[in-house]
Amino acid sequence: MSTGYLDKTFKIKPEFEKFDQEYDIFNRSVWDEKINPKNFYLSYDITNYVPKKSEGFDHWDYALRNASWHLADYFADHQGDANRVEGFTDFFSIQLDGPKSKVKLTSAEETTIKVKRAAKMLGAGLVGVCALDDRWLYASRYDRKNKKSRPLDLPKGMKYAIVIATPMDYELAKTVPSATGGAITGVAYSTSLSSLNALAQFITNLGYQAHASMNDTGLTIPMAIEAGLGEYGRNGLLITKEFGPRIRIGKIFTDLPLMPDKPINFGVKEFCEICRKCADSCPVKAIPQGEPQSEPPNMSSFKHITKWTVNAEKCFKFWVNMNTDCAICIRVCPYNKDYTKWWNRMSLWLAGTPLRRLMLRLDDFLKFGARLKPKAWWGVR
Amino acid sequence: MSTGYLDKTFKIKPEFEKFDQEYDIFNRSVWDEKINPKNFYLSYDITNYVPKKSEGFDHWDYALRNASWHLADYFADHQGDANRVEGFTDFFSIQLDGPKSKVKLTSAEETTIKVKRAAKMLGAGLVGVCALDDRWLYASRYDRKNKKSRPLDLPKGMKYAIVIATPMDYELAKTVPSATGGAITGVAYSTSLSSLNALAQFITNLGYQAHASMNDTGLTIPMAIEAGLGEYGRNGLLITKEFGPRIRIGKIFTDLPLMPDKPINFGVKEFCEICRKCADSCPVKAIPQGEPQSEPPNMSSFKHITKWTVNAEKCFKFWVNMNTDCAICIRVCPYNKDYTKWWNRMSLWLAGTPLRRLMLRLDDFLKFGARLKPKAWWGVR
Repeated sequence: MSTGYLDKTFKIKPEFEKFDQEYDIFNRSVWDEKINPKNFYLSYDITNYVPKKSEGFDHWDYALRNASWHLADYFADHQGDANRVEGFTDFFSIQLDGPKSKVKLTSAEETTIKVKRAAKMLGAGLVGVCALDDRWLYASRYDRKNKKSRPLDLPKGMKYAIVIATPMDYELAKTVPSATGGAITGVAYSTSLSSLNALAQFITNLGYQAHASMNDTGLTIPMAIEAGLGEYGRNGLLITKEFGPRIRIGKIFTDLPLMPDKPINFGVKEFCEICRKCADSCPVKAIPQGEPQSEPPNMSSFKHITKWTVNAEKCFKFWVNMNTDCAICIRVCPYNKDYTKWWNRMSLWLAGTPLRRLMLRLDDFLKFGARLKPKAWWGVR
Repeated sequence: MSTGYLDKTFKIKPEFEKFDQEYDIFNRSVWDEKINPKNFYLSYDITNYVPKKSEGFDHWDYALRNASWHLADYFADHQGDANRVEGFTDFFSIQLDGPKSKVKLTSAEETTIKVKRAAKMLGAGLVGVCALDDRWLYASRYDRKNKKSRPLDLPKGMKYAIVIATPMDYELAKTVPSATGGAITGVAYSTSLSSLNALAQFITNLGYQAHASMNDTGLTIPMAIEAGLGEYGRNGLLITKEFGPRIRIGKIFTDLPLMPDKPINFGVKEFCEICRKCADSCPVKAIPQGEPQSEPPNMSSFKHITKWTVNAEKCFKFWVNMNTDCAICIRVCPYNKDYTKWWNRMSLWLAGTPLRRLMLRLDDFLKFGARLKPKAWWGVR
């Protein structure tokens, strides 16, 4: 069900079509000769990959980065039938059976309060609810083993998405690009899958259906915007008030009656219009300098929706050449701050006012977004 | 290898013997008619257990508590061969293979700094290292399915234990005893197993052996004391400076050369000598009021070591009657505070001085340790 908010904000045209997961850049690296992953995936397997000697890319760094993915890899590759890559092309399937009778509900409002309380307790950094808008589900899911698309297997009757965001480590994020810094992603996925599966089990235990999902089944950013978790940024990421773009997003599809949240605005669009830090800092110029466009740079992004779109081909090629993922556009973003500090909350407030240029200048002066040497992060000389 | 610290602190006698896991109260509930678990374990399975109607023990509360255990249960009951209960009677067996060649090490000091940095990044609340003292390993491990003991399967050559502590939620801990409050335990185990397995994978990735363990294989408290994480309290728990007794402990056995930490003292013994809050608050009087003793109340505890010992039979019987675990002795402990607040750090300092009685009185005055109604925690009227 569409609330119309995204249609208006991103000028979605009538000819807009669902995204097919086979065009996702990771899936394209399986079937599209143009996208050559070289040693990229291999580097996640320490039995076959010899790390480099350079700082941030040595044996210690890859040992940590790969370990950070341990739980996510375990559930992705080692569980369920071999055709599933749970959390990436398929939703999780580790829920235990529910009770004989459903819990007694009073109001959707009270249910939502309790579900959010449970979500936070089970490790969610942020949590919001939206009505499920079918357009953000993938047209089909991709089967990497057999190199073909197959129907989405999401059971019928899911009415809501509970969207959760998991923060990534602020200190380690300062070291990107580095294999060390790749651990922010792995840890956040592992934490996220733990929270998502526990929350899905909680709803199952109440007697309702719940399916935990990370990057599989549907696109998280539009759902997160509808669920009031944040706004869309120039770097193609969700920008939150609490952690800026330094998050991973997951969701749970459910038929439990809930009360949807409302989208929020705290000036991100206006700020990104005057800021080019992510675009200027991207080594391969994958982030647009200009206005939002309705035509994507290639088949790995949506058509007929007016937004800033990252060039996924250029972006992924940089990852492949480094043998680790990159998050420079997260590191340098002026919204990437530690908001437990009051002065950073001041900065957030300033970014939402006509004084936003002043905030940008202060950021430069204080050298926010500068890279930390991986050695310094490890705490050794 | 023994450093002699625990021998002196707890007056360990020459006739001291390793503890046999079959005498652990949970294992006794499998084979000893005297320990009847009734519906206790059944209540963790929502398909067969009908929650009560009372506040803190209703359908929502059990749905949350059981969901909090989801990941821990998954790895305990659903993985590996059916005879293993990983994390409880057997160490985890989900590590992937290591590299062809070991990482180059410089000094044990530098290795330890890096391992601790990795541990924190992978989610550990506290981390310390001790030389492995064989006495704290179980004499044998218990096979619940076949109702018999079997040899400990820890591979030879493990020289150190890396001990990690995972904090439990402060707010929810206020609601114990309640099924809701039982979620502090489940969440901490699930988080803990995630950190432990990732850290064991990190060390494996470096080319060394590492086995992640929670309550299985050996006793964590003596190892945690040796590793400098805290002191022993009247309630039979490890008391830490950072979270008081509000933690769960796990460890990794490894042959990676490390530098052990030293035990710490911040006045816990002296404080527990004048404080009786845990003993006074225990509904079944399972916690001793008097001096440390060398004879245990029953076969579920060590002999020939002089310490405060909880009566595990009385304690577990209370859990069975409630159909959830209890943590009143954690909730009421004056060390159970939120130490991110400076005034609570003041209180911690005071407890370590001759003014400790004043701290106790202040605590009473400020009503620390009072129970919060589960309804209030859920945030509904």
